[in-house]
Amino acid sequence: MPKSATTSRRRNVVLALPIRLDRAIRGQSQQVHAALRSAIVDGLLAPGLRLPSSRGLAEQLGVRRNAIVAAYEALLSDGLVEPRHGAGTYVAAELPAPQAAAPAADLDIRIPARRPFALGVTLVDPSLLKRLAAASRRRIAQAAPDELGYGDPRGSLHLRTQVAHYLAANRGVRCDPSCILIVSGTQHGLRLCIDALLAPGDAVWFEDPGYVASRHTLGTTGAKLVPVPVDGEGIVVSAGESADRKARAAYVTPSHQFPTGVAMSMARRIALLDWARRADAYIFEDDYDSEYRFAGPPLTALAGIGAERVIYLGTFGKTLFAGLRLGYVVVPPALVARVVGARAAQDRFPPVFMQDALADLMADGVISAHMRRMRPRYRQARDAVAEALARHGRDVLQLAAPSQGLHLLATLPPGAPKGAARLIRDRAGVECRLLSDARIVQRGPDGFILGYSGFATRDLANAARELARAAKEVLSAASRGR
Amino acid sequence: MPKSATTSRRRNVVLALPIRLDRAIRGQSQQVHAALRSAIVDGLLAPGLRLPSSRGLAEQLGVRRNAIVAAYEALLSDGLVEPRHGAGTYVAAELPAPQAAAPAADLDIRIPARRPFALGVTLVDPSLLKRLAAASRRRIAQAAPDELGYGDPRGSLHLRTQVAHYLAANRGVRCDPSCILIVSGTQHGLRLCIDALLAPGDAVWFEDPGYVASRHTLGTTGAKLVPVPVDGEGIVVSAGESADRKARAAYVTPSHQFPTGVAMSMARRIALLDWARRADAYIFEDDYDSEYRFAGPPLTALAGIGAERVIYLGTFGKTLFAGLRLGYVVVPPALVARVVGARAAQDRFPPVFMQDALADLMADGVISAHMRRMRPRYRQARDAVAEALARHGRDVLQLAAPSQGLHLLATLPPGAPKGAARLIRDRAGVECRLLSDARIVQRGPDGFILGYSGFATRDLANAARELARAAKEVLSAASRGR
Repeated sequence: MPKSATTSRRRNVVLALPIRLDRAIRGQSQQVHAALRSAIVDGLLAPGLRLPSSRGLAEQLGVRRNAIVAAYEALLSDGLVEPRHGAGTYVAAELPAPQAAAPAADLDIRIPARRPFALGVTLVDPSLLKRLAAASRRRIAQAAPDELGYGDPRGSLHLRTQVAHYLAANRGVRCDPSCILIVSGTQHGLRLCIDALLAPGDAVWFEDPGYVASRHTLGTTGAKLVPVPVDGEGIVVSAGESADRKARAAYVTPSHQFPTGVAMSMARRIALLDWARRADAYIFEDDYDSEYRFAGPPLTALAGIGAERVIYLGTFGKTLFAGLRLGYVVVPPALVARVVGARAAQDRFPPVFMQDALADLMADGVISAHMRRMRPRYRQARDAVAEALARHGRDVLQLAAPSQGLHLLATLPPGAPKGAARLIRDRAGVECRLLSDARIVQRGPDGFILGYSGFATRDLANAARELARAAKEVLSAASRGR
Repeated sequence: MPKSATTSRRRNVVLALPIRLDRAIRGQSQQVHAALRSAIVDGLLAPGLRLPSSRGLAEQLGVRRNAIVAAYEALLSDGLVEPRHGAGTYVAAELPAPQAAAPAADLDIRIPARRPFALGVTLVDPSLLKRLAAASRRRIAQAAPDELGYGDPRGSLHLRTQVAHYLAANRGVRCDPSCILIVSGTQHGLRLCIDALLAPGDAVWFEDPGYVASRHTLGTTGAKLVPVPVDGEGIVVSAGESADRKARAAYVTPSHQFPTGVAMSMARRIALLDWARRADAYIFEDDYDSEYRFAGPPLTALAGIGAERVIYLGTFGKTLFAGLRLGYVVVPPALVARVVGARAAQDRFPPVFMQDALADLMADGVISAHMRRMRPRYRQARDAVAEALARHGRDVLQLAAPSQGLHLLATLPPGAPKGAARLIRDRAGVECRLLSDARIVQRGPDGFILGYSGFATRDLANAARELARAAKEVLSAASRGR
């Protein structure tokens, strides 16, 4: 716009404003209202400024005059403009400071990269997604009205029944569906049960080294973490009793200890249950990747032998994929009401459709077929990583290739210098958690927690080779430097 | 089986057991293992009992002998059996007590009945469900691998962008999608933000009367509730300042106060924001049913005029239906990182598919079309209830039919005896919350919070008539009894 034109119109300040009507808003007066409201709230129209006459603005904007009148009335009821008797409409004198849409400042949202050896990533068959898509479509399209309102805080009975069957057949856990709650994953289930069952400051035994995410969750609940060392049989119950015999709970990963991969022995399981009975404590059993076992039958879950003290946490995040956000908690019958009560103040109940869609797939055997298909692939992935590390990393990496689960642990020799693991990881360009991240007070050689479930075997083998080479380089440079 | 046959086989104790192989389990040895494990853990096979030879059991069960050998080995590694040299396999002497699957005891899961005037129920068009079903199928079937793993804790960017558009156009709230978190509903969002932003014992202003579910949520977080009365302009800010000037937050329902239906005046909004700035406090703005406005343009949200102090809580539970479990929180840019951090220890991130399916429908205008279709139906429902109450309940019920939202409030006259509301509700056979349920310390006549969004107009009119009649009967009986 040439300067002269602006000057000649100086009195009509509003006209120089970029008033843009949003045609997506229904109704002309609503469009005008929204545009003027934004202009006032943003400070483009200053407090005390006189607005044009309704007729004048209607002409400028090419809308009906009635729309302007209605918009002005709406601004009036917003308190954003004020009439002055016989003198038109003015932007209200007392207004809050202008606001602009600002992005979140310096926010580092950590979405794990999808490079080997990231954890929590799985391979998903397109045919499985197709089945899930079809089941979901069916469930949504055919939803009865009473499936759309507030639901059972425990989640779909259909899915809970399928989970009960699965647990009885595969984990030795016999529970009634009324004792199962569908949650969005392990951390959600853990948080829910801690909120329901523990008081702030209650002591909880925690495996050292242990699962970082659960440690974080426990930390935010105000629980007092009691680190308890892990040996070749799992958590050392006697050490826990020495540290805090009267703890209120223990968090354990008995079937495949995170990150060491140790399976808790039956003797240790019985000792842990005995302690829980004596101490009147709860055991949180995180059975996070028990679905994938490569040798021998799965071990019976703790909840299968001590159901009255054990809260069992399972997830479909490993069986299928994390983005599904479906897991489950099995709660001793006497505690269900308390956990359900806590849920009312958290997320109330899980979304309805995907639960039933998943249950349909379980009932049709699609999920167990998927697990059968994936098991040899994951075993192959484990073997590829283990072989590459053994071949290229002899003398520098000690392996504990597990008979179950989706990650393995490679540890550095005892003499490795401090910080070497981080250096090796960075040099190899791989994505992985370090053993030291999982440690609390226990010390020892550092190592690499290598997830192998989400990547092609060849990529895993290459990444393992890089890791082994980097380990050799870093460690030999360190020993030369001595 | 005839008694003699049983007697003649007495030594083979196992044979008398109902060993049922679960054909759903893959592999004969796994089937045998699961069956025997259950029998041992359940106490059917007592500690110290000798198990049959593998050959003998194989014959009895009609499975390969190798399967029995493998099953026995698995039980051995479970620690459930023990070998005695040269003497076969015995149930381990030291075993936990038997467990049986028990249902949750005396659990009263409260799923609101779907009778008028239940709150939280909406009408849903089958055609909308069909569109949602199709979008969901498409989203799942076409999901890229990186949409299946751990996602952004804020939820889908697609949906957050659509929500930002919606809020700018309809609520005067201008925010960047980076400041929006997708949650499962208002209580979830509230809980998340309180966990992130407040410390236990922090004081929070709460409308009196106010929204019961949020009061419960706040209560479980350890916040100290400061009841602040509500008048015809909304929360009485000066009363809040007298009660606790240094409170850390206020929870308010400005666009349609729950349950009174009052819209907070602009003067009160500005006073509230001013207090929040002076006190360095947060405002939780629950904008729970702002989508349905029957007269005049919607009022600008508090978050539209004081974004740096306001946490805005919105839900699709009223726009669409509660079972969808989708809502959103708009957080001031400076606080996003803290709220995201808190989510890591709660439910981590929302399920991926339904978010994008819903966003597709928003982008296609399907949701706004649904809202346009529903608005006259809900207005009709509101009118039907108001008219029936006015016609049949003159002198006993005072109405506040709102220009927005999905419920109205009918109050009893000041002289009504204590307990009358409950009696009237029971006699009328309707499902509704009482005003007294929503009160904290404020006193006054009781009343009925009447949801009208989930039912046919005729049913609502009938229920309203019953309520009015019951009110007349109960109140006139009470006045005769005086």
